Amino acid sequence: MESPEPSHSFASDNNSGVHPAVMEALERVNEGHVLAYGEDPYTATAIDAFRGLFAAPVEVLFCWGGTGANIVGLHSILQSFQAVICAASSHINVDECGAAEWMLGTKLIDLEAPHGKLTPSQVEDQMYVLGDEHHVQPGALSVTQSTESGTLYTLDELGELAEMAHRFGLKVHLDGARLANACAAEVMRPEDLLDAGIDVLTFGGTKNGAMYGEAVVFLDPSLAERARFLRKQNAQLPSKMRYIATQFGALFENDLWLDNARTANTMASRLGKAVASLDGVVLASPPQVNALFARLDRRAIDALQSWSYFYDWDQSRNEVRWMCSFDTTNQDIDRFVAGVAEALALAP
Amino acid sequence: MESPEPSHSFASDNNSGVHPAVMEALERVNEGHVLAYGEDPYTATAIDAFRGLFAAPVEVLFCWGGTGANIVGLHSILQSFQAVICAASSHINVDECGAAEWMLGTKLIDLEAPHGKLTPSQVEDQMYVLGDEHHVQPGALSVTQSTESGTLYTLDELGELAEMAHRFGLKVHLDGARLANACAAEVMRPEDLLDAGIDVLTFGGTKNGAMYGEAVVFLDPSLAERARFLRKQNAQLPSKMRYIATQFGALFENDLWLDNARTANTMASRLGKAVASLDGVVLASPPQVNALFARLDRRAIDALQSWSYFYDWDQSRNEVRWMCSFDTTNQDIDRFVAGVAEALALAP
Amino acid sequence: MESPEPSHSFASDNNSGVHPAVMEALERVNEGHVLAYGEDPYTATAIDAFRGLFAAPVEVLFCWGGTGANIVGLHSILQSFQAVICAASSHINVDECGAAEWMLGTKLIDLEAPHGKLTPSQVEDQMYVLGDEHHVQPGALSVTQSTESGTLYTLDELGELAEMAHRFGLKVHLDGARLANACAAEVMRPEDLLDAGIDVLTFGGTKNGAMYGEAVVFLDPSLAERARFLRKQNAQLPSKMRYIATQFGALFENDLWLDNARTANTMASRLGKAVASLDGVVLASPPQVNALFARLDRRAIDALQSWSYFYDWDQSRNEVRWMCSFDTTNQDIDRFVAGVAEALALAP
Amino acid sequence: MESPEPSHSFASDNNSGVHPAVMEALERVNEGHVLAYGEDPYTATAIDAFRGLFAAPVEVLFCWGGTGANIVGLHSILQSFQAVICAASSHINVDECGAAEWMLGTKLIDLEAPHGKLTPSQVEDQMYVLGDEHHVQPGALSVTQSTESGTLYTLDELGELAEMAHRFGLKVHLDGARLANACAAEVMRPEDLLDAGIDVLTFGGTKNGAMYGEAVVFLDPSLAERARFLRKQNAQLPSKMRYIATQFGALFENDLWLDNARTANTMASRLGKAVASLDGVVLASPPQVNALFARLDRRAIDALQSWSYFYDWDQSRNEVRWMCSFDTTNQDIDRFVAGVAEALALAP
Repeated sequence: MESPEPSHSFASDNNSGVHPAVMEALERVNEGHVLAYGEDPYTATAIDAFRGLFAAPVEVLFCWGGTGANIVGLHSILQSFQAVICAASSHINVDECGAAEWMLGTKLIDLEAPHGKLTPSQVEDQMYVLGDEHHVQPGALSVTQSTESGTLYTLDELGELAEMAHRFGLKVHLDGARLANACAAEVMRPEDLLDAGIDVLTFGGTKNGAMYGEAVVFLDPSLAERARFLRKQNAQLPSKMRYIATQFGALFENDLWLDNARTANTMASRLGKAVASLDGVVLASPPQVNALFARLDRRAIDALQSWSYFYDWDQSRNEVRWMCSFDTTNQDIDRFVAGVAEALALAP
Repeated sequence: MESPEPSHSFASDNNSGVHPAVMEALERVNEGHVLAYGEDPYTATAIDAFRGLFAAPVEVLFCWGGTGANIVGLHSILQSFQAVICAASSHINVDECGAAEWMLGTKLIDLEAPHGKLTPSQVEDQMYVLGDEHHVQPGALSVTQSTESGTLYTLDELGELAEMAHRFGLKVHLDGARLANACAAEVMRPEDLLDAGIDVLTFGGTKNGAMYGEAVVFLDPSLAERARFLRKQNAQLPSKMRYIATQFGALFENDLWLDNARTANTMASRLGKAVASLDGVVLASPPQVNALFARLDRRAIDALQSWSYFYDWDQSRNEVRWMCSFDTTNQDIDRFVAGVAEALALAP
Repeated sequence: MESPEPSHSFASDNNSGVHPAVMEALERVNEGHVLAYGEDPYTATAIDAFRGLFAAPVEVLFCWGGTGANIVGLHSILQSFQAVICAASSHINVDECGAAEWMLGTKLIDLEAPHGKLTPSQVEDQMYVLGDEHHVQPGALSVTQSTESGTLYTLDELGELAEMAHRFGLKVHLDGARLANACAAEVMRPEDLLDAGIDVLTFGGTKNGAMYGEAVVFLDPSLAERARFLRKQNAQLPSKMRYIATQFGALFENDLWLDNARTANTMASRLGKAVASLDGVVLASPPQVNALFARLDRRAIDALQSWSYFYDWDQSRNEVRWMCSFDTTNQDIDRFVAGVAEALALAP
Repeated sequence: MESPEPSHSFASDNNSGVHPAVMEALERVNEGHVLAYGEDPYTATAIDAFRGLFAAPVEVLFCWGGTGANIVGLHSILQSFQAVICAASSHINVDECGAAEWMLGTKLIDLEAPHGKLTPSQVEDQMYVLGDEHHVQPGALSVTQSTESGTLYTLDELGELAEMAHRFGLKVHLDGARLANACAAEVMRPEDLLDAGIDVLTFGGTKNGAMYGEAVVFLDPSLAERARFLRKQNAQLPSKMRYIATQFGALFENDLWLDNARTANTMASRLGKAVASLDGVVLASPPQVNALFARLDRRAIDALQSWSYFYDWDQSRNEVRWMCSFDTTNQDIDRFVAGVAEALALAP
């Protein structure tokens, strides 16, 4: 491969750095002593910002990372004998080393979901076991927005899923590690999730320009009191909390969180258009947010991967994932497209 | 209270900010993309620095915080039916909301330990249950250095405890959230812990000038391979790992970690001397590291606490904890001592 | 040792066999098919018998054994971040291999309790942590009646403990593996436990003439619906339930359960009087139910133990436990007392 | 429905009673005191009988019931971050209220398995995650023999599955709640399971004429020492163990266990032949052991079920399960077949 490498790879939005405005915010609060564990004024301010964003008196518990935030959110809505209905491709099912089963003792009822999206009838089909003590009892539905497959639920779809879940007494959890990308795609605003019936969600910061820190947002604020203890008990309570709070503050200032996500989405869209025009690349679907799933020749994949790393999403189908980030540039796209073209030429 | 408040309170070393050199290091690595989850060069460099510090091929897994790091360390040495012998005053027993019991399902056999220090005979006294399936089986000993009571084990004491534990097949865990303060007090160097027989330890950064991040250091490196999975499963695997790695790098540069801890220790020593000379203050013991435990009149405690917050350690004995930090200044000491004198005068 | 061994040892009421009336009941229901898992008429009848005994609409879930029944009862009243206050000498703390910690993830706050009995002020002393997320939250009080030390709570004592627990929002669990012995000692009737404020209890059968089977009795019947699932989830749901139900039916017929316990109590009282008159035997306390704790010379203990087995309760104090059972006879007592006398003579 | 009901329903082999020889054995050991928890001579004798049956020095731990025995067996071969590969239709996945997830914290990787049987390639397909800390690690394969679908693995099939599992470091668990029916069907003998590579199994008694009690048989005896503690910790250690041991003794005497299972199998075969000849009944497959799965008109199902209860196995397909037992008689078959004919006539 002779093409110059992109400066920012397409491996993961976790591989990106920290947005300069977030870094500045970290420096700004680095002054004197404040109470730890969230009893500081920066945390109070950040929680207020969330209330503004959701236009509701939501409760917020900051956590370290995404796996832990999902654990705290799910724990807050589950009894021990209850199971979580989720997509087979969901992060909680595939990418958390069994954390939900180990830390919560819960069963994940993972259902095959094309493009990462569940349907109300899939949920309904699981309900026949309710009341039968031999079967673990569905107690929560977990959906991801935007999904792990780079797709989006419409607001109506989310609302219909939540309605079905609530009809049978289940609570609804939303893994929003990439919620910003969904909002930037203009299919929804945060406040719409209240109407849609979401009970608790993970609001991601890390993949969108933060250094670390995710927020568990309780749209049903009554869940938060118990969750305070669950957060600590599950080892998810940060001590020097001001440094997480201020990152969210920076992201919300002038809608930086939306700008960051919009950039990532736009870059994926550009990348999609460019590679779709190459012979030998088939897109799994047009990108809706910041991830692109494409199929190409195995030899081209191997050549590209050793040149600029990305994930071999589904080896059986020669499908790869190319992920854009808030700091992906036009130059990165141009270089990567050139690289793809070169790799395809090498593998006729 | 008319005395001017100290700029840095004596509440907790978690209330302090981030050392400027650490903040600079965070900015320095904020450049481009690197692989997430510890596959980056900064992490490799930081692990090498640990190997230098311990003068041995230790393995290191970075975690978010202290509770999580203790969980990963303990999990790596326990079978499910095994219990942990620890001091009743230990952080894992008192301050982690039952995380060890919940996340690991283990029993903590918590023993009354004057000044936070266990003795070999206390360990031996628990061994009569070994082999009896009705009793949970002691499988690990956990000690804290420096202790939650602001005291220190000598190296000989640690060695004798570990020898007793090993004699009965137990592994030894050390909670080193404030290990730096023990090293700065010159009772030991990191490498001495290998000779002493410690198997795994938490090496704290947060209380010593870092923003977040603790290291689980496996003196027995064979424990680390399994622990990789336990870290993820217990939701303790940071994604943008470079930002933790570089903080340890900064702390190790020119022995900043020791300087920070030495400052905190020295300030506690100064504070101890100053308040010991006041009528109405009795020190629980001369401070060995950065914490001072003192008894004084309840009304004086109340007046002081609402003036500049600290922890009411043991209300039944009117004993308070005053904790110094890397950023505590001579002015803070002077102001606080003046405040104590004023409060005592108010409460004759 | 030349004395003839007793036919029934004084090792444990678990070493005894099955009362003939219970065995006959097992045969009586061994006829044809009935629904499994408690949907059979025998189970319904036995539950009605419990309602008669407690003179209240209690709910009853039969379980396999004592450890499991305690797990189901405790699980039904705990949230995951809540701890159980109990005596250090309680069965759940000492003799269940950490089942409560492992199966429920709960912490046992085990308090030193002379003669196995907790006091209200001990409970109150633990309450200062309520509301503090760093501390595991006391959520249940567990008491044992009759205690593992062979003592009894008076009804007033139980009532005061439960009142203290309820004042702080804790639920009250009673381990009644030997509740029959307490009732036979006439300090209380089952129905008194409702007034005393017990929420859920284990009602033991096995140590009182049954083959297997313990009942979890929910004095607060609203707890039982959730507990149905917890029983199955904790692997405590017997399939051929009729065989447990009929054993309780047999025990309740003509108050056999009280007669059995009264025999065991009476035998312990006789044994106590007889050995107390021997030089070299000191009773820990006069027996209140069916267990006798005595101190004697180590050599006498060893000689006796290899002649007719019993438990060396506290080796550090040369204290042994001699346990009577529903099938202990006067001849057993006479032989054992002769053996004790012989052993003491051998060890001058 | 005017047909006379069968004396023994076709609902479940758990609805049957206790074989008279087993009941006699219970009475026979009901004599005097013996040590509890398996330290008695009856237990030793029964374990010897298992060693004879398997022609190997297997270790045996008796447990209360099937769910608990599966828990103990699986726990003995799993580390906390390991998952269990099993059929979606397996009892551990469907019928144990999430016990494996709750009690062990493990994930069940449940795979669609036609007729309840997994294939080696299905196991191999899951292996790509090995070594990746983001994914829960497959650590055990669990198969059921005879399966929950009334089918049988051949010995070769079991051997190939175990070989595949072992190739990747997984251990193999066999749920043998109905192992007797497989042995009676002459596809295998117990000792063949050693050659096939099974590491640990549940050997069922309850569904084959026992009152209660299942055995965990460690073909790899080194697993048993650790499992002793796991049994107690998971609340599966029976106290008056002789009463379980003697039931297995009775079942092994003169191969009663095989005779019982053979009767159940034969009855299912007879029933299958008889109903297959009726218009309106379609067998899912010819019965291989004691369960028959049949499809018939919904109205016929409803009429039959309210006449003599059985399980509506798959309502979406109008498929029912008719289960024979050791005590099913020719008269039961004749009556039931007449009932089916009557019900079908009612629902033309």
